[in-house]
Amino acid sequence: MLVDGKQMRPIWREKESTSVRVIDQRILPHELVVVDLNTVEDIIRAIKEMYVRGAPLIGVAGAYGVYLAALNVKGEAGGLGDIKEACDRIKQARPTAVNLGWAVDRVLEKINRIGNPSERVHAALKEAENIAEMEAENCRKIGENGLVLIEEISRNNGGNPVNILTHCNAGWLACIEYGTATAPIYAAFNKGVDVHVWVDETRPLNQGSRLTAWELAKHGVKHTVITDNAGGHLMQHGMVDMVIVGTDRTTCTGDVANKIGTYLKALAAKDNGVPFYVALPSSTFDWNLRDGIAEIPIEERDPDEVRFVHGLSEGSLRRVLVPPEQSAAANYAFDVTPARLVTGFITERGICRASEADIRKLFPEKFNTEAVDVN
Amino acid sequence: MLVDGKQMRPIWREKESTSVRVIDQRILPHELVVVDLNTVEDIIRAIKEMYVRGAPLIGVAGAYGVYLAALNVKGEAGGLGDIKEACDRIKQARPTAVNLGWAVDRVLEKINRIGNPSERVHAALKEAENIAEMEAENCRKIGENGLVLIEEISRNNGGNPVNILTHCNAGWLACIEYGTATAPIYAAFNKGVDVHVWVDETRPLNQGSRLTAWELAKHGVKHTVITDNAGGHLMQHGMVDMVIVGTDRTTCTGDVANKIGTYLKALAAKDNGVPFYVALPSSTFDWNLRDGIAEIPIEERDPDEVRFVHGLSEGSLRRVLVPPEQSAAANYAFDVTPARLVTGFITERGICRASEADIRKLFPEKFNTEAVDVN
Repeated sequence: MLVDGKQMRPIWREKESTSVRVIDQRILPHELVVVDLNTVEDIIRAIKEMYVRGAPLIGVAGAYGVYLAALNVKGEAGGLGDIKEACDRIKQARPTAVNLGWAVDRVLEKINRIGNPSERVHAALKEAENIAEMEAENCRKIGENGLVLIEEISRNNGGNPVNILTHCNAGWLACIEYGTATAPIYAAFNKGVDVHVWVDETRPLNQGSRLTAWELAKHGVKHTVITDNAGGHLMQHGMVDMVIVGTDRTTCTGDVANKIGTYLKALAAKDNGVPFYVALPSSTFDWNLRDGIAEIPIEERDPDEVRFVHGLSEGSLRRVLVPPEQSAAANYAFDVTPARLVTGFITERGICRASEADIRKLFPEKFNTEAVDVN
Repeated sequence: MLVDGKQMRPIWREKESTSVRVIDQRILPHELVVVDLNTVEDIIRAIKEMYVRGAPLIGVAGAYGVYLAALNVKGEAGGLGDIKEACDRIKQARPTAVNLGWAVDRVLEKINRIGNPSERVHAALKEAENIAEMEAENCRKIGENGLVLIEEISRNNGGNPVNILTHCNAGWLACIEYGTATAPIYAAFNKGVDVHVWVDETRPLNQGSRLTAWELAKHGVKHTVITDNAGGHLMQHGMVDMVIVGTDRTTCTGDVANKIGTYLKALAAKDNGVPFYVALPSSTFDWNLRDGIAEIPIEERDPDEVRFVHGLSEGSLRRVLVPPEQSAAANYAFDVTPARLVTGFITERGICRASEADIRKLFPEKFNTEAVDVN
C-alpha cells in the first residue's frame, strides 16, 4: 500500500542485492526503519523479536528464510542437510504460528529434490515470492468482497462518510498487501467511497494506535484514534456503521479468536444493531474446532506489556511505567467472540453468515463428513 | 484508609497550622506528594489542575476554600463581601461539578450572618469538616451494605477468594474515606474476607492502574491490573464473581453515567451472568432525568489525554506519544449503562434493584409525584 506516495510492503527482496528487507514494526509509527536480513539467523531474530508480526507475514518471512538458507550454503557440498536443519530452527522461532511451519515446509518441498545449488536458490526465492503473492491476492479478494458491504452502507448514508470501527492491526503490515480487516476499507477508499475509521488503540501493545493509524495515515484514509473503552458509547449514539476485525483463529462453527477486547466490541455491536464482520482468509479457519471458548487456548503474555507503555518522549523512544511498581498485572492476549455475535465472515471466496451451515456452503471441501442438508 | 500503616485522607487540616493539605493525585502512584494550600487561589488551582478529583472530594476542597477565604480576610473590616466573591471564584473552578457549588454554598450559609471574623473562621472550618465527615459516613454505610453481597459470594465460593472487577477510581482518593465502589471491598478485607480485585487500567487517564491499584496496594488488598479489554475474557472463564463500579450521575430510572468503558463491562457481565453493582451515595442520583442515553451530556475532553500516556521512565515522570503525530484522536470521557444491565445499586440507605420502582421504595421522599403503587 502507499507510504508517502510510494508502494510498500512489509517484506520484500531488493532487486540489486540478495538481501530480504523488512519494516521493523517495533519502532512504528514514530520512525520507519527498514532492516536488511541476510542470514537465517537474521530471519529468526526478526520473527522472534517481532520486527515482523501477523500470521501471513510471519509465514512469508519464514519462506524467505529458506531462500536465505539455500543462498548461504550455495557453495558447499551437499547443503540440503544444512537447509533442512535451518528450516527446523526457523519453524521454532514462533512455534504456535501455524503459517510459519506451513510456509517453510512448502518452500522446502519445492527444493528438496534439486541438486544444483544455484537452481535451488532460484526455486526457493520463487516459491517465497509465490507465497507472498498468494497472501496478497487473498487479501485483495477479501477487499473486493467486503467492498460491497461498505458501498451499500454508503448508498443509504445520505452523503455522510461510512464510519467503520476496527480493533488491533489486521492491516497490510500483518499481511503483505491490503490486510484482512482493512482490505474492504482500502478497496472502498481507492474507489472514492467516503470512509472514516475509528481506530481502537488496542491495549496493551497499541497495535491500533501505532500500526493501523500509521497505515491509514500513510495511505490517506480518514481516521480517529480512540481508547478501547470508547466503542460502546459511539455505537449507542449511531456513530459506527459497521465493525470489521481480523482473527487469529476461527472455528468451523464461527467462534472467533482475536485480540483481547474484540468480544466486548461484538457485544456492543449486537446491543446496538451494528453489523459486526470478521475478515479472514480461509486458511485461518480451524476446521477441527467446534467450541471456541472451551477449545481455543488463550496465550498469557508478559505482564510488563500491561505495566509499561512505549512511545515518543522528547524525540526518543521510551517506555513509561504506569501502575505502582509492586502491583501485579495480567496479560491475556486474545479472547473469543461467540458466533452468535458475528454478523458475517468476509473471505477470499465470498461472504457468509457466522454459522457452520453457511461456512460449509462456502467451503464444502473442508468438511469431510457425509453430505448434510444445511438448510 | 491505610497508607504504609498510617491512616490517611486525600484532604485534611494540619492540627498545628492553618493550612489545608491535599495529596497531589496527578503524581500518584510513583510519588506521594502532599501539598499545602493556604489561600483561595491555592484551592482553585488544586481543583482546576486536578490535584484533587472525584465529586465528593472536589466538594470538600471547595468547602475548605471558604474556610481559607474567611481566614485570609480575618483582619479586614467587613470581609463578608470578599468571602462571597471568593466563593464565586471557587465555584467557577469546575463549573459542572455539582458537589462543588453545593458544598461552598453550604459553608457560606453557615457564616453569612456571623459578624465576628474569628468566629466566622471557626464556623467555616467546622462546617467544612462536617461535610467531610458526612461524605466519609455515607461511604462507610455503602461499605457496610455492600459487604453483605461479598460475604454471600464468599460463603458459596468454596474457600476461593472473591474476585471483584472494578473500573476507574471510585476509591477513598475520590471520596475522603472508603470510597464508593471500593467501600464494600475495604469492608470485606477489614473483616477478613478473602478478596481479590481485577483493576481495569481505565484509559485514557489510567485512574485504575494509577489510583485504584495504589490505594489497594497501600491498604494491603490483593489486586491485579488488567487492560480495559480483558474483563470480557475473564468473565467468560468464571474469573469474576462480581463487578462494582461508581457513577458520576444516575437517573431516577437507573441509567448509570460513569467513566467511558463501563457500558462494555456491563454488557459482558450480563452476557455471562456476573452480578453488576453500582455503588453511590444518594446525592449522585439525578431525580430529574429519566433517559440516561438521551439526556446525560457526555463530556469530550482533550484528545491529548488519548495520544499521550504518563508514567515513570528512568526515575522521572514523563509522557510518551503513542499514535502517529498526525493522527486525530477523540476522547469521550463517560458512557451510559442502561438500567437493564445493572443488577443493583449499593447506597448509604441500602441496596435496591436498578428500576425506578425499587429506587422509589428506598428514597420515597425524592419523588414528588402522587403515590404510585410500585409493586
